[in-house]
Amino acid sequence: MNHKIEHAIAHVRATNDAAAAATQALLNAKTKPPGSLGELEGLACRLAAITGKSPPPRLTKAVVVMGADHGVTDEGISAYPAEVTAQMLANFAAGGAAINVLGRQAGATVLVVDMGSRVPPPDGTVLSKRIGPGTRNFAHEPAMTEAQAEDAILAGIEVARGLISEGVNLIALGEMGIGNTTSASALCAALLKVPPAEVTGRGTGIDDHTLAHKVAVIESALVRHTPHAQTPLQTLAAFGGFEIAGLVGVCLAGAAARVPVLLDGFITSVAALVAVRLCPLVQQHLVASHRSVEIGHAAVCKALQLTPLFDLQMRLGEGSGAALAMPMLDAAVAIVHEMATFASAGVSSH
Amino acid sequence: MNHKIEHAIAHVRATNDAAAAATQALLNAKTKPPGSLGELEGLACRLAAITGKSPPPRLTKAVVVMGADHGVTDEGISAYPAEVTAQMLANFAAGGAAINVLGRQAGATVLVVDMGSRVPPPDGTVLSKRIGPGTRNFAHEPAMTEAQAEDAILAGIEVARGLISEGVNLIALGEMGIGNTTSASALCAALLKVPPAEVTGRGTGIDDHTLAHKVAVIESALVRHTPHAQTPLQTLAAFGGFEIAGLVGVCLAGAAARVPVLLDGFITSVAALVAVRLCPLVQQHLVASHRSVEIGHAAVCKALQLTPLFDLQMRLGEGSGAALAMPMLDAAVAIVHEMATFASAGVSSH
Repeated sequence: MNHKIEHAIAHVRATNDAAAAATQALLNAKTKPPGSLGELEGLACRLAAITGKSPPPRLTKAVVVMGADHGVTDEGISAYPAEVTAQMLANFAAGGAAINVLGRQAGATVLVVDMGSRVPPPDGTVLSKRIGPGTRNFAHEPAMTEAQAEDAILAGIEVARGLISEGVNLIALGEMGIGNTTSASALCAALLKVPPAEVTGRGTGIDDHTLAHKVAVIESALVRHTPHAQTPLQTLAAFGGFEIAGLVGVCLAGAAARVPVLLDGFITSVAALVAVRLCPLVQQHLVASHRSVEIGHAAVCKALQLTPLFDLQMRLGEGSGAALAMPMLDAAVAIVHEMATFASAGVSSH
Repeated sequence: MNHKIEHAIAHVRATNDAAAAATQALLNAKTKPPGSLGELEGLACRLAAITGKSPPPRLTKAVVVMGADHGVTDEGISAYPAEVTAQMLANFAAGGAAINVLGRQAGATVLVVDMGSRVPPPDGTVLSKRIGPGTRNFAHEPAMTEAQAEDAILAGIEVARGLISEGVNLIALGEMGIGNTTSASALCAALLKVPPAEVTGRGTGIDDHTLAHKVAVIESALVRHTPHAQTPLQTLAAFGGFEIAGLVGVCLAGAAARVPVLLDGFITSVAALVAVRLCPLVQQHLVASHRSVEIGHAAVCKALQLTPLFDLQMRLGEGSGAALAMPMLDAAVAIVHEMATFASAGVSSH
C-alpha cells in the first residue's frame, strides 16, 4: 500500500483509558447524583480517551461532506438521477442544503469536497479532489482501480490534516452521491459477509420493485468481484465510491491525530468500517451520532461496537445526523469544564 | 376552583392542524427526499401546530426550574438529606449546576423559582413564590391544602406569563426537590391507577431496601388519601409538591398562550399529566424531550401520548434533558426557515 497511507495507519494509537477515568472522577465530584447524566458522561469520557486529555478540550468542529457519482446508477437503482449529485454540490456551496443549516446551528464549519461527480462543479465553489468523473459501474467491472482507491484515501487524509492544522479537533463525516447506498450496501455485505438483502435499503426512497433490483445487482456483483477482492482495499475498489474512499482517509488521519471522528448514518459508517479493517485501532476514535433508518446501519454499528446517541428516523445523509449530535458533544464537554463540585458549591454529597 | 385558574383553562385551544400541514408542505419542497429528516420534520410541524404559525417562529427559550421540599423525606425515602434542596437552589443561583451549564449551551434563560424549600434561599438570589417551608408528610396527612395547591398553580401561571410577556416562546420545565420522585410516583400511581411498584424508581440513587420502603410508603398513602382525593386538584394536594403544582400552572399558562411546553423527565411529565387532567387540550401543547431512567416515566409518556426524542439514560432532573433537546427544536425550526427548495436551488426533484 501507498507509504503515506501506511504512515497514517502506523500513527494510530490506542485511546487513553487514564484520561477517561480522570474525567469520570471529575464528573463524580460535580453537583449531581453519580452517573445521573448517563450517556452524556460516557461521551465526555470517550472524548477524553480519544484526545488523551482530561478534561476533554472544547470542540472546534467541522463536517467534511464528500460527494461523488457512481457508475452503478446506470442500473436504475436510485430514486433520483445522477445529475443531482452535481446539483447538490452546488447547493452545498450556496449554503442551502440541510447540512449547511444544521452545521450553522451547531457552530461547525462545513467543508464540501468534490471527490468525482460526473459533471465537475464550477471552479472555486467546492474543494476539488476529483479522482475521476464518477466510478465505473460495479455491476460489470470494479468501481475503481486500487490506485484510485489509494488516491481517494490520500485525498481524505490531506483534507483531514488540513482541517486539523487549522485547529479543528472534531471531524464529522458527511457524504452525497446518487447511488452511494448501493456501494455502501455492497461493501457492507462483502465486509460483514452477510446476505445483501439484510443490509440493502431504500436509500433516498425507492419502491419495492427497485429495491429488489438493487439487491439483485449487489448479489450479482458480489459473485463477480469477491474472488478478486481479498483485502479491504480491494473490496473498496470493487464497489466504490470515491467519496466513501475519501472518508476512509479522513477516519485514518483523524484517528492518527487523536481527533474524534463523528459518524453520520449508514454510508459514513461503512467508510469507517473500511478504515477499521485497514487499522483496527481506528474504532476507538469513532463516535456514533444517530441511528439511521437505512436497514444496514444497525449491522455496521454492531460491527463497530458503537451505540448511536439518538434515533430520529432520519435518512438524509450529508452529515445531517452528525451535525445534530454536535450540541450533545459540546454539552458533554461543557459539563466537565463548568459544573460546580459538591465541595465548591457547599452541597451535601450524601 | 380559583377563577384565575379556570380562566387559564378556558383559554387553552386545540392546536392548528392547518399550520402543521403548511409547514410539512414547506418541508416537502426543500432539497431532500420527502420525510428524510424524520422526527425533525415532525417536530417542526408540531411547533407550527402549537404556535399556529407556519413556518414556526424562531425560539426564544427559557427553562423554569421550580424547587421545593417534601415532608415525606421524613420517611427516609431519599439518597440525599432535605437540606440539599436549598443548597441546590443556591447552586442554581450561582450558575454552577448542570441546568445552568446546559441552559447556557442551549441559549436558554434559566429562571429558578423557590416554591417552598425548608430553608428559604437568601433574598434576591432566586425568584420567591413560596407556598410554605416544604409540604407536610403525605405518609400521615395531605401534603398541602387545596388552597395551597391552587396558590402554587397560580404562581406557576404568573411565572409563565411573565416569561411570555418578555418574549419567551418556548418554556421548558425543570425541578429540584429532595423527595420529589416520591410525590411524583404517588401522583402517577393515583392518576393512572397503577400499582406504585410499577412507577416508583430509585430517584437520585437509593438501594433496594430503601426502594422497597419508598414503595410501601406510597402504597400506604394511596390507601389513606384516595377516598378523599377524587379530583385532580385533590390528588395533587394529597401528594404534593409545591414545585410540581407550580409546574402544572406553567403548563396551563403556556398552553393558553400557544407557547410549546417542553418536558424534562419523570417529575415534570407528572406535572404535565396533572395539567392534562385539569384541561385535556394541554396535551397538544406539550413536547417530550428525553426518556428518563426513572421507571415511571414510560407510563406517563404513554398516558400523555408523547414519544421522547432521545434516551441518554439520564436521571438528573433540573430540566437537564429538556435543555439538551433544545438544539434539536432550534434545528427543526431553522430547517424550515433556511433550507433551499428544489426550485430555488435548481435541483431535480425526481
